[in-house]
Amino acid sequence: MEQCAQQVIALCRKLAGFTEEPGHITRTFLSPPMHQVHAELRARMKALGMAVSIDAVGNLRGYYPAKSNMAPRLVIGSHLDTVPRAGAFDGVLGVVIGIALVEALQGRRLSLGLEIVGFSEEEGVRFAFPFIGSRALAGTLDTSVLQRRDTDGRSIADAIHAFGLDSAHLPGAKLAEETVGYLEFHIEQGPVLESLDYPLGIVEHIAGQSRAAIRFTGKAGHAGTTPMDQRHDALAAAAQWIALVEGEAGRIPGLVATVGRLEIEPNASNVIAGSVRASLDVRHAQDRVRHQAVDRLFHIVKQLASDRGLGAEWTEHLDQPAVVMNPGMTKKLSNAVRMAGHPVHSMVSGAGHDAMILAERVPAAMLFLRSPGGISHHPDEAVLATDIAAALTVGLNFIHSIGETL
Amino acid sequence: MEQCAQQVIALCRKLAGFTEEPGHITRTFLSPPMHQVHAELRARMKALGMAVSIDAVGNLRGYYPAKSNMAPRLVIGSHLDTVPRAGAFDGVLGVVIGIALVEALQGRRLSLGLEIVGFSEEEGVRFAFPFIGSRALAGTLDTSVLQRRDTDGRSIADAIHAFGLDSAHLPGAKLAEETVGYLEFHIEQGPVLESLDYPLGIVEHIAGQSRAAIRFTGKAGHAGTTPMDQRHDALAAAAQWIALVEGEAGRIPGLVATVGRLEIEPNASNVIAGSVRASLDVRHAQDRVRHQAVDRLFHIVKQLASDRGLGAEWTEHLDQPAVVMNPGMTKKLSNAVRMAGHPVHSMVSGAGHDAMILAERVPAAMLFLRSPGGISHHPDEAVLATDIAAALTVGLNFIHSIGETL
Repeated sequence: MEQCAQQVIALCRKLAGFTEEPGHITRTFLSPPMHQVHAELRARMKALGMAVSIDAVGNLRGYYPAKSNMAPRLVIGSHLDTVPRAGAFDGVLGVVIGIALVEALQGRRLSLGLEIVGFSEEEGVRFAFPFIGSRALAGTLDTSVLQRRDTDGRSIADAIHAFGLDSAHLPGAKLAEETVGYLEFHIEQGPVLESLDYPLGIVEHIAGQSRAAIRFTGKAGHAGTTPMDQRHDALAAAAQWIALVEGEAGRIPGLVATVGRLEIEPNASNVIAGSVRASLDVRHAQDRVRHQAVDRLFHIVKQLASDRGLGAEWTEHLDQPAVVMNPGMTKKLSNAVRMAGHPVHSMVSGAGHDAMILAERVPAAMLFLRSPGGISHHPDEAVLATDIAAALTVGLNFIHSIGETL
Repeated sequence: MEQCAQQVIALCRKLAGFTEEPGHITRTFLSPPMHQVHAELRARMKALGMAVSIDAVGNLRGYYPAKSNMAPRLVIGSHLDTVPRAGAFDGVLGVVIGIALVEALQGRRLSLGLEIVGFSEEEGVRFAFPFIGSRALAGTLDTSVLQRRDTDGRSIADAIHAFGLDSAHLPGAKLAEETVGYLEFHIEQGPVLESLDYPLGIVEHIAGQSRAAIRFTGKAGHAGTTPMDQRHDALAAAAQWIALVEGEAGRIPGLVATVGRLEIEPNASNVIAGSVRASLDVRHAQDRVRHQAVDRLFHIVKQLASDRGLGAEWTEHLDQPAVVMNPGMTKKLSNAVRMAGHPVHSMVSGAGHDAMILAERVPAAMLFLRSPGGISHHPDEAVLATDIAAALTVGLNFIHSIGETL
């Protein structure tokens, strides 16, 4: 498996060369280098005896047939688009591992067919709307979405047409009737597995997310002439709140809460801040816990503003429920990890993934591979060959266990 | 005096119409509208029997002679330049009050001459270097400064030439030998007098200033996938520090400490901040108190960074000593306020003023007028006619008291 793993890394690195931005890895939805990625992977899949097509939203789909026609089908996928200036493994790795698993079968036919999918869009970069690829398979892509426009004024429908596809064929992109499950391999994008020294993690939940905007409105003033007790300093209020957000999150197991962005007016060294707009990002596997935390953090905003004589507003602009991976599939995945001789570590994904979208339609499972340094969305993003080898073994175990229970 | 006060306001409003930016009050050093201000004030001063000139750096200087030649001279001044999108009174008011005082003499000659100065530059906007006007009078304007360039690449020397002046005459701009004192009227630019319901304040000290930059260096990370206990959040550290800065300043009488500006990397709602650069502005009338406070705030930076496993740097880039106004002059000013029937309130100016520069050469005193709402550097900046009337009475009392002691 070690050699296969090295080939997986080499292929990911090769695909990283197909980019919109020379010197960086940037490959958004239906951008020209996506044709090169498709050509490379199509050739490899065809060589393995797979039937390859591109569906109406640009998902690359390769089918490795079962022993018999109309056999049940397991879909293995992840995404081929990237954030701007990305690393080489986020998304792509899961597609390349899928192909490597087919290769590892060395032509043997199973009682189930394998469909390897490279989703065209997951990151939501080009149209500020994520999961276009997996929504097409799940049948949950509202056609009105096709009218969304990118910063160049091109609609999704235009982009589909420019890529040589026809959005009228969207219904045909749906998952085949005989699909019995979905499996996704993905880098963790966080430091947990590395800190535990585990190669793999089994995703049990994908955390729900709240995103909100908070504004403190104080009064701008001269930094020299306004005594401390006569200030209405919006940044001092925001700072006190940020410290409390950190404290609240630290007290609740599994909760993460982040203030990552501030807009300060006027943001001048000698002027007391008149207003501060802060972002808030809160995630937890249990929606109830998350909602309570957000309510509490909003309450603190109100309290602090009142104590300081400031104005305050808060708006939740995203409330995305948590998604549970399929317990039966997840149990099989745990067994597959155990059989491969690795520690079974169940975890929550704090990031959204295509598996979350597919889970609405088919039993879905997800395996994380350790992220060295916890780094992702960065050129330093990496994955260890030994961890890929472990994932390949687990994948084969899992495929066989699905086949056995059919 | 009430009618004179209304005329002072009307003239300040008229001068506010001479601007680089229609619809706003923006008049930087030697900008074209400064010619219009000079023409307006020159005509008014000439009508009062004053000798008017423009010195080598563009200061407007009007001399109202004494009974005898070579009599002692009191300089009354403030600045005619503004910050971008300013109010109508910051600086200008002090010049217009000076002229109104001469007018109030109704042609009477005193035992001392009065020189009214409208400084060409105080705010430091155009060349990022303040007090060019008053430094020329004090003889502390290093000629190498004339090579500083504005954002258009023009040097101060170029700007002087373009305004029709000759920088070679700079030595001639110095205060006349017979100058015995300097008096400046200025809006408070803060909320203290209003909160006390006093019209006027006597400036005893101009606070010393420290300006510093602090950087916390943590580790950027995914807001969803990085557990709270594995974060190195530079913004959470900066927030905790800002709250402590506010607390420290609140404990030390007379100290003001402000964090008004942050630069956050990457400043994205779903990314833990990797680094934060914060400004620090600390002011106090006693340099020892200010230095101790800055040292303590730097120590807290170091401590917080160490506790959190972050990197930290701090650099003080300004350490401007406090300036004491002349005790004899200040006592005369207090007496003049008392004689006018107003409460005598001594205070510290948190902002720098031309008086600070002149104080290096001549006994200087400064009178603040209440700022409604504490507002300055803003179109809403205002001043009450009754407070101007009070200041005019005080000014006349002061002039007479200086004359009596000569």
